[in-house]
Amino acid sequence: MDLISIRDLTKEDVEAYFKKTAEMEKNLASGKKPVSNIVVANLFFEPSTRTSLSFQTAAKRLGADSVVYNASTGSTQKGETLKDTIRIIDGYADLIVIRHPLEGSARLAADVAVHPVINAGDGGNQHPTQTLIDLYTILKCKGKIDGLAVQLVGDLKHARAMRSLLYGLAMFGADVTLVAPKGLEMEKSVIDEVRERFGAKVSERSSLDLKSCDVLYVCRVQKERFSDPYEAEKVQKEFSLHEEDLKDVKKDLIILHPLPKIDEIPESVDRSPHAKYFEQAKYGVPVRMAILYSIIKEAQK
Amino acid sequence: MDLISIRDLTKEDVEAYFKKTAEMEKNLASGKKPVSNIVVANLFFEPSTRTSLSFQTAAKRLGADSVVYNASTGSTQKGETLKDTIRIIDGYADLIVIRHPLEGSARLAADVAVHPVINAGDGGNQHPTQTLIDLYTILKCKGKIDGLAVQLVGDLKHARAMRSLLYGLAMFGADVTLVAPKGLEMEKSVIDEVRERFGAKVSERSSLDLKSCDVLYVCRVQKERFSDPYEAEKVQKEFSLHEEDLKDVKKDLIILHPLPKIDEIPESVDRSPHAKYFEQAKYGVPVRMAILYSIIKEAQK
Amino acid sequence: MDLISIRDLTKEDVEAYFKKTAEMEKNLASGKKPVSNIVVANLFFEPSTRTSLSFQTAAKRLGADSVVYNASTGSTQKGETLKDTIRIIDGYADLIVIRHPLEGSARLAADVAVHPVINAGDGGNQHPTQTLIDLYTILKCKGKIDGLAVQLVGDLKHARAMRSLLYGLAMFGADVTLVAPKGLEMEKSVIDEVRERFGAKVSERSSLDLKSCDVLYVCRVQKERFSDPYEAEKVQKEFSLHEEDLKDVKKDLIILHPLPKIDEIPESVDRSPHAKYFEQAKYGVPVRMAILYSIIKEAQK
Repeated sequence: MDLISIRDLTKEDVEAYFKKTAEMEKNLASGKKPVSNIVVANLFFEPSTRTSLSFQTAAKRLGADSVVYNASTGSTQKGETLKDTIRIIDGYADLIVIRHPLEGSARLAADVAVHPVINAGDGGNQHPTQTLIDLYTILKCKGKIDGLAVQLVGDLKHARAMRSLLYGLAMFGADVTLVAPKGLEMEKSVIDEVRERFGAKVSERSSLDLKSCDVLYVCRVQKERFSDPYEAEKVQKEFSLHEEDLKDVKKDLIILHPLPKIDEIPESVDRSPHAKYFEQAKYGVPVRMAILYSIIKEAQK
Repeated sequence: MDLISIRDLTKEDVEAYFKKTAEMEKNLASGKKPVSNIVVANLFFEPSTRTSLSFQTAAKRLGADSVVYNASTGSTQKGETLKDTIRIIDGYADLIVIRHPLEGSARLAADVAVHPVINAGDGGNQHPTQTLIDLYTILKCKGKIDGLAVQLVGDLKHARAMRSLLYGLAMFGADVTLVAPKGLEMEKSVIDEVRERFGAKVSERSSLDLKSCDVLYVCRVQKERFSDPYEAEKVQKEFSLHEEDLKDVKKDLIILHPLPKIDEIPESVDRSPHAKYFEQAKYGVPVRMAILYSIIKEAQK
Repeated sequence: MDLISIRDLTKEDVEAYFKKTAEMEKNLASGKKPVSNIVVANLFFEPSTRTSLSFQTAAKRLGADSVVYNASTGSTQKGETLKDTIRIIDGYADLIVIRHPLEGSARLAADVAVHPVINAGDGGNQHPTQTLIDLYTILKCKGKIDGLAVQLVGDLKHARAMRSLLYGLAMFGADVTLVAPKGLEMEKSVIDEVRERFGAKVSERSSLDLKSCDVLYVCRVQKERFSDPYEAEKVQKEFSLHEEDLKDVKKDLIILHPLPKIDEIPESVDRSPHAKYFEQAKYGVPVRMAILYSIIKEAQK
């Protein structure tokens, strides 16, 4: 069993992960380690702090071991194919976590490997574990997802977390508003898909309107995806959150962000009760424990 | 409980760490691991070999796990603030060890984090765990610190270990002589402080005189702190130890160094019975075990 | 007990490692961890993926812990000697695994360290753990080594694995044919040595002839060893394996490669039953477990 795309999961699968995550939160409190004799290989072909560290922490909290491969120091420079790298690591480890800049690379890895593969982000494509964390955070903060007014704000074209998230929100019946600068909108085919598959309510705007919003999800303008850093910065400023935007919001609005954030959210907002992004980051550990645990147990059957 | 500066510790605190270190030396021999279910995050925003490896080794010898964040590969490049990074890591780990080039950064981290923070060096400022190692080594080699004639030699302006060390030596009643090249002397305010607080005997010289010296502590001229590498090298040569300097010394003189050393101590001295710097490096593990252990236990109360 | 060169081992030593490796394969299946309270330091002064990861995995599967030192981030930049680095790490860890670009560096490390040292490749010189993996793979695939027709193909002058391997094959009575491009032949002194010491049958050719071959061992033209990358590529193409080369071979020919491979073996061969290089990579873990285990137990006597 691999976890490559949120599309591979049914609503029941996701709910099972949520149930398992709640168990893992209890294990974290009690120190119970339900796994042993497992080595997880973390293959990072792109820099990442929180994804890499939270997967490593999750493995250790579970009772598993991690080995880490950072592409910059490895043999990929020498011209080895990704297939070969995967085949070799697959001979060492019990489970592979992979982040790679190319779309489809995680799927390729899953095809090649005998052991399970978890996609920790493949280019602008999918980042399913982030989506599970996002949904779990909403569920913990609001008690439900169904019927919530959720706004996704920022560069929805390039941010990999956003496509997976839209799919997950639609699956659970949220009403989603997409707020993106011109030229950086979510791909139409992605929106059409969730409308068709889940009958999801998805609308589009080109500026923020937080009055009736329950969940505001802000994402970073990823400068490295632009050829013109000036353009990137301009867009980022325009689609930043400002403290005054929060004056007329619902009392229980929550603000999420996949992090790292730069200037799209001012530091003063960090202290607001609406800000839940650090809590969201923290759920990365129990959610990834639940994913690792479920996949390890499935593989041991 | 954080450990940010040696100034935060009373003499009784330091003595408690020494007692705990002796226990840890016994644990090292017996293989007893007194800690479990703890993840230590090592955040290194500056390269470091021995500090990073000895903290990692200490954690493992205690029974704890480590995750390592090296800034060069992380998201700080993307513009994330230190505060945000700390808040996120604080959500994963039980304890944070931080090295950062900016003075005050460890204190900032401690203010932000819910979990305890240990300063593993903040710029030219403090390096309290190194000082505890230095003092413990002196105690182990000489049986006491009080009344010993200690010379600190080298670039006392930039070397971060030296300020903390002067403070610690003064606290324990050593007679300290500072030997620094012109322009690289210890800051006067630091000397005034220890004279006032501990009634410490501190004198200054501009060349070595080892006749009555009990402990010689040499530190490296940190080339990267100079704009002119030629000047750095000249000073380094002048304030190097030469084998003939050791002809008329006390039989039980000990030579310490925070390491790495380059040419400030000739290789032949490594074989002399005076040289204790590798033993000093080795004490890094039990001293850091004692610190980690004490702080973990305090946090669990 | 160190492991620096295959030359330090008798045939009985190697056979003892093979026996221990078979035990470790059983431990891998049962999850038994025969070691505890051991920290292995992995010092890598050269990039390496599979050697580093397979040593780390082997340590974890045994029940030991690993700390990793990558030279690019360490203090060697600051001018510290290798001797000093080793002495310091030797104070932290129970066993040192070292890869270094300079010939003789692993021997130097073993001389300096109190704890055992394992050579994970020193320049173009020795790579004894790779050789033990190669020989073990042949033994597992063919049931014996004695009398087999083995061809070593590629840049036999620079590839460090090949000298150790020739020595090991000769020790076990294989008939070795060396196939190298002009100017990249194995050093004559190495061939003379194995002829003299083991009465080994070693012949040399300048092109492939696989008709009667039992084991084909292909190695990469290491571009970084050439000053002219064009020349490197030309040679590599000439000494690559082509699918049609496999038409008239023995049914049970096995093809090995130390990996990473680039274009010296076409991807289509990966699917052939002759290709055993991924299996060979996989044996890296149990063979290195056997080596670590034997050396740890010897040191504990």
